[in-house]
Amino acid sequence: MTITITAFERSPDGGRGLARDTRVRWALEEAGLPYDVRLVSFRAMKEPAHLALHPFGQIPTYEEDGLVLFETGAIVFHIAQHHGNLLPADDHARARAVTWMFAAVNTVEPPILELVTARIFEGDKPWTKERLPLVEERVRDRMKQLSARLGDADWLDGAFSAGDLMMVSVLLRLRPSGILDEFPVLATYVARGEARPAYQRAFEAQLAVNAPHP
Amino acid sequence: MTITITAFERSPDGGRGLARDTRVRWALEEAGLPYDVRLVSFRAMKEPAHLALHPFGQIPTYEEDGLVLFETGAIVFHIAQHHGNLLPADDHARARAVTWMFAAVNTVEPPILELVTARIFEGDKPWTKERLPLVEERVRDRMKQLSARLGDADWLDGAFSAGDLMMVSVLLRLRPSGILDEFPVLATYVARGEARPAYQRAFEAQLAVNAPHP
Repeated sequence: MTITITAFERSPDGGRGLARDTRVRWALEEAGLPYDVRLVSFRAMKEPAHLALHPFGQIPTYEEDGLVLFETGAIVFHIAQHHGNLLPADDHARARAVTWMFAAVNTVEPPILELVTARIFEGDKPWTKERLPLVEERVRDRMKQLSARLGDADWLDGAFSAGDLMMVSVLLRLRPSGILDEFPVLATYVARGEARPAYQRAFEAQLAVNAPHP
Repeated sequence: MTITITAFERSPDGGRGLARDTRVRWALEEAGLPYDVRLVSFRAMKEPAHLALHPFGQIPTYEEDGLVLFETGAIVFHIAQHHGNLLPADDHARARAVTWMFAAVNTVEPPILELVTARIFEGDKPWTKERLPLVEERVRDRMKQLSARLGDADWLDGAFSAGDLMMVSVLLRLRPSGILDEFPVLATYVARGEARPAYQRAFEAQLAVNAPHP
């Protein structure tokens, strides 16, 4: 089986590992699967050939023999369902791990994305200075709840799972704002994820593409 | 097996079916599973007993013998994986249906939620009038892409699936803004979902709880 994913030709984050291909690379590394990467320019992402793979014109996509997927959560789930130890074998534990995958992308990530949008895409708007504290408070509300649930556990539900992979990846996007470090339980949780050898290989692989050239 | 879900004691939408328990009710109806509903007040949602079920203090939750789930996408997936025809049997088609579930909650819903937040929770803020067109344009960008992909198909990928159930549910939240009706392909798609007997039973069931009392 040959696996090919797509990634930014030049990631807007300059190699900090926040682009979503890093999540897929991480899952592939955890599962021990080799993969090829096809780099896509911003222009090519909006052209018909890429839109046929990804209707929203984004990265990453995932191709294996006869199958095309987009949407990071779905790709990570597909990898986890067939390979490695990213989902527990027990049916109930598996359902709970999937719950954390959806919680990461549908409950925790949206306010973080809204903050990123406010800071970056609306950074020059006249309302942003006054509005930002409101957006930040919505993020903090979620972080308090997540921190309370995690408590002193290493991972969200027993062993490390695809749910943790997604949650750590989502929380990483919060670090540049400084808010992640306001929640030591979560900052430590994220560091625990980053310390995994599979994450480090994934990070290095995206950095090799995106590191600033001297 | 006894299934119990939670729902708002009084939904903020006054019975328009936009609260997330409707998505779970719909999946249960498609699968032909009976279920009980426990209604939860806004106050009780933030208390320890409910937070033990749902760490973010929201509805719906899902309980069956020995299993507790939260997060609508995960609950719908769990139902679909074990019952009814909400996910195709073919492995590739199943992975694509799951892709649409994640696309609904992670790519299409976030800009719609941002619009809802701007209109409702920030409706009284001084910046909202000037900012709203920007937020609406982000939603329209996604709608154009989704409409182009759907084209003249009935459903997103072959037969109706849990991916359509989630996507239609997400798009329904856009209707009050008027933007859904700017995209006839999508408005028709949503109407197709609403016409399903299972959706109608789910809608009636939530309406019975939330209909304004004369």
